[in-house]
Amino acid sequence: MSTPDQPSFPTSLGTSDLTSMSLLGKDVATELMGEVTFGELAYWLLTLQRPTRQQGRLFEAVLLGLADHGFTPTAIAARLTYLSAPDAIQGALASGLLGGGSRYLGVTEDTGRFLRAVVADLDEVPTDEAGWDEVALAAVRAQREKGTFVPGLGHPVHKQGDPRTPRIIEIAREEGQYGTNLALFEAIGRVHEQVLGKRLPLNGAGVSGAALADLGIPTELLRGTVLLARCAGLLGHVAEEIRRPIANSMYLSIDRNAVYVDPSDGQAG
Amino acid sequence: MSTPDQPSFPTSLGTSDLTSMSLLGKDVATELMGEVTFGELAYWLLTLQRPTRQQGRLFEAVLLGLADHGFTPTAIAARLTYLSAPDAIQGALASGLLGGGSRYLGVTEDTGRFLRAVVADLDEVPTDEAGWDEVALAAVRAQREKGTFVPGLGHPVHKQGDPRTPRIIEIAREEGQYGTNLALFEAIGRVHEQVLGKRLPLNGAGVSGAALADLGIPTELLRGTVLLARCAGLLGHVAEEIRRPIANSMYLSIDRNAVYVDPSDGQAG
Amino acid sequence: MSTPDQPSFPTSLGTSDLTSMSLLGKDVATELMGEVTFGELAYWLLTLQRPTRQQGRLFEAVLLGLADHGFTPTAIAARLTYLSAPDAIQGALASGLLGGGSRYLGVTEDTGRFLRAVVADLDEVPTDEAGWDEVALAAVRAQREKGTFVPGLGHPVHKQGDPRTPRIIEIAREEGQYGTNLALFEAIGRVHEQVLGKRLPLNGAGVSGAALADLGIPTELLRGTVLLARCAGLLGHVAEEIRRPIANSMYLSIDRNAVYVDPSDGQAG
Amino acid sequence: MSTPDQPSFPTSLGTSDLTSMSLLGKDVATELMGEVTFGELAYWLLTLQRPTRQQGRLFEAVLLGLADHGFTPTAIAARLTYLSAPDAIQGALASGLLGGGSRYLGVTEDTGRFLRAVVADLDEVPTDEAGWDEVALAAVRAQREKGTFVPGLGHPVHKQGDPRTPRIIEIAREEGQYGTNLALFEAIGRVHEQVLGKRLPLNGAGVSGAALADLGIPTELLRGTVLLARCAGLLGHVAEEIRRPIANSMYLSIDRNAVYVDPSDGQAG
Repeated sequence: MSTPDQPSFPTSLGTSDLTSMSLLGKDVATELMGEVTFGELAYWLLTLQRPTRQQGRLFEAVLLGLADHGFTPTAIAARLTYLSAPDAIQGALASGLLGGGSRYLGVTEDTGRFLRAVVADLDEVPTDEAGWDEVALAAVRAQREKGTFVPGLGHPVHKQGDPRTPRIIEIAREEGQYGTNLALFEAIGRVHEQVLGKRLPLNGAGVSGAALADLGIPTELLRGTVLLARCAGLLGHVAEEIRRPIANSMYLSIDRNAVYVDPSDGQAG
Repeated sequence: MSTPDQPSFPTSLGTSDLTSMSLLGKDVATELMGEVTFGELAYWLLTLQRPTRQQGRLFEAVLLGLADHGFTPTAIAARLTYLSAPDAIQGALASGLLGGGSRYLGVTEDTGRFLRAVVADLDEVPTDEAGWDEVALAAVRAQREKGTFVPGLGHPVHKQGDPRTPRIIEIAREEGQYGTNLALFEAIGRVHEQVLGKRLPLNGAGVSGAALADLGIPTELLRGTVLLARCAGLLGHVAEEIRRPIANSMYLSIDRNAVYVDPSDGQAG
Repeated sequence: MSTPDQPSFPTSLGTSDLTSMSLLGKDVATELMGEVTFGELAYWLLTLQRPTRQQGRLFEAVLLGLADHGFTPTAIAARLTYLSAPDAIQGALASGLLGGGSRYLGVTEDTGRFLRAVVADLDEVPTDEAGWDEVALAAVRAQREKGTFVPGLGHPVHKQGDPRTPRIIEIAREEGQYGTNLALFEAIGRVHEQVLGKRLPLNGAGVSGAALADLGIPTELLRGTVLLARCAGLLGHVAEEIRRPIANSMYLSIDRNAVYVDPSDGQAG
Repeated sequence: MSTPDQPSFPTSLGTSDLTSMSLLGKDVATELMGEVTFGELAYWLLTLQRPTRQQGRLFEAVLLGLADHGFTPTAIAARLTYLSAPDAIQGALASGLLGGGSRYLGVTEDTGRFLRAVVADLDEVPTDEAGWDEVALAAVRAQREKGTFVPGLGHPVHKQGDPRTPRIIEIAREEGQYGTNLALFEAIGRVHEQVLGKRLPLNGAGVSGAALADLGIPTELLRGTVLLARCAGLLGHVAEEIRRPIANSMYLSIDRNAVYVDPSDGQAG
């Protein structure tokens, strides 16, 4: 029992005694190692539910689609930090993760939160596409009236369609994990043009948010899930930087194009 | 081609064009998602080799054994950072990873580096246990003479044996991944008592270093591999902190036991 | 000039050539070193204006009041990170700064933002206390109606008054830096009881926000200013940790009081 | 008193009670704010000694010379992180500090450590330049024989002399803070050509290490001191990024020059 002077700290994560080690109530050596994949463990840690193979396959597919997108600002930051402090690889990974804020990695969370809010407000869950289209239309109109974007729509490169989107929907269907959030997201893809006047692709970050919401990942952990995926990608960048260093050349390409502006001339940056 | 003014930056990681997205030379949607687990992708990113199912199973088992050990300093740091800045989950994960330095998470790297150095120096690779015992004996003696520890030996809790160690060796054998580094590590387990005068367990961090070395993970990425495993564990701590907050109680349990020492009395901390 | 292929990056910060080095348009060696204090340089970097001695004194006084508050969650995180990775002091400082989010270090920013918004809305700036009291009363009522707090009010320890508050006001007056934000903040201190029904102290974080606003620090850099102050405090914690290590004892005091809860019993954390 | 169950945590940093707040044994409001500069407080936190005005002036001059050097890898990382996560300024600062490892920010620590080791080994401290030249000659020869560099020598830009070096020496002399470490460092500047066969400048990072060593900053806190200076510079970069954003253009200048290399062609990065 906990007293003010001697509090106790409950946990269901890792613990160990002289002869055993457990995690989530399972023996690490005999019940987890060799039995559960790393992605499945992550799902379990996030939800406190052991994933079925079906849930695990969709969850890992989502992680794969989010792991790396080349020279993003976060990947560049990780490489530059590794250049400066190669003795502390943890700093390079941390530096990259710190870019995981609202702007670039926030879409997955924003989409999941938006879809869940719309679904939570429904008196009745639609049973067919027409029903979902109606819900989607009202939701897109409401965003439009508030002057805010519909999260998950649009992509700077994949203007005609993000290749991850149909694939995640396909896997979700194959594995019996297609739920209300994906249904609503697909409906938004069908109807938004009526309201917004132009056709935008459902992007991969958004469909990931919808799939993770259907998988039961808590909303406030959606961004954390993206960060885990990204952690593998950042490790890949550090590995590549070790094999063929380019961060110094990145740094020089910026430094050599610096232009000094006198701070007193009204143009100062 | 690259010129001083206009450098080019080669990469084999993520890239995309209007209709496709690839990573490691594979189409993300059709060749990776749903086909490869997240752990397998991480292995691929670290080694540039697609893992076999056998390699993947051992690699993921190692990650599972390293993911979480309860209220480690890094887990506590992540929880306290989440308490202070709940709007920036990336900061909590980064804060936890930053503890991944030499002291607690360094054993895996130290062991892999040590084993590889010994193996690289061999004129001939032993073909039986007796041969490995001889190599191990010389290696332990050399460390003893230098006055340095043999990495991977000893554990504060599992004094009679770390349960992960035999399990990793078992999986490595099952999957045909048992190589020179694990052979040498096991031999060290058999012979060190002759030199050190006491029997110490082969710890899980050490056997992980041996297994990852046999799997071909570059030495300078061993710590990074541990950090990826730990990233999942830290996410689990944040998830648990959200479900049942205890970080404020951790903080108070320390703050309330603060004792102010005058800095001028020679006792100052 | 910048082209798409060869962009240029303007800056007014550090630059150097063969024989000189400049910062903010000043020669570092002859015009800054020995001439300007570190706090004054920080002010200059934040505002692009060289501070007068008067502005500098108030700015540095604010930094001193924010530098350290003992075993805060951020200080504990920094110490635990140093314990885990003593070879990477940058990680310990970063880990501590990462707690500088909305909850603990956000009050200074929130207060500055709130006061500036109220002042910006005024048709006419009051010229006496009675006038400010009227403005303050309306502002506190408006917050009350929205159901949100008035930032800068209340303190967990200094329930009868934060000793930093009168001191910052005093220095601001001495140095001729007392402006609209401090005037409004003081007025809130006088009138809030009429609306809220209880007397709360004006806290040090809040008065710091008011003073920094009067000093012209941009609102979006108020939290950054607190982080700079805190960086010195965190360095003090690492220095103290080196002189007399206690982080391991902090860690053990938590780990030893861990209570394992089966995740399947409905009580799981 | 501390027991295993109820440890106590000694500190001489911040503490507070109902009516007062103290730091380093001084009342924050009456003895520190308005009385001590921010740089002086940092010195005090690092050494537990209140600096004299003379010590404070040299210490702050060193901080000014280290605060910012334009588009260093750390500054770029901070800007890119701010671009990605503008809602979490703490992450941008942390990301920049994480580059403060061995390579770029390590020279100050390396130089201070090297000089102190040479001085600690002296039977007798020289009393004139000729005496120091002899010590310096032996020290440089010893490094040469070990095949290691003499820290603090050489600069990529200031090949004929770093302008900070004579200025720090000048201020140290003016303030009576010129001690054994600066004397040895200057002597190295005079004699190294005899051993190395070429004349290299004494760089600013090195002379900073010498001056901080003479000021009594503990060796293991030299890098931390540089990080504090850099924290102000990073804040300046974020401030400039807010005034005139260029991080997106930095990111695009790299991303647009990415060249995809098939990982299986033996050229893979």
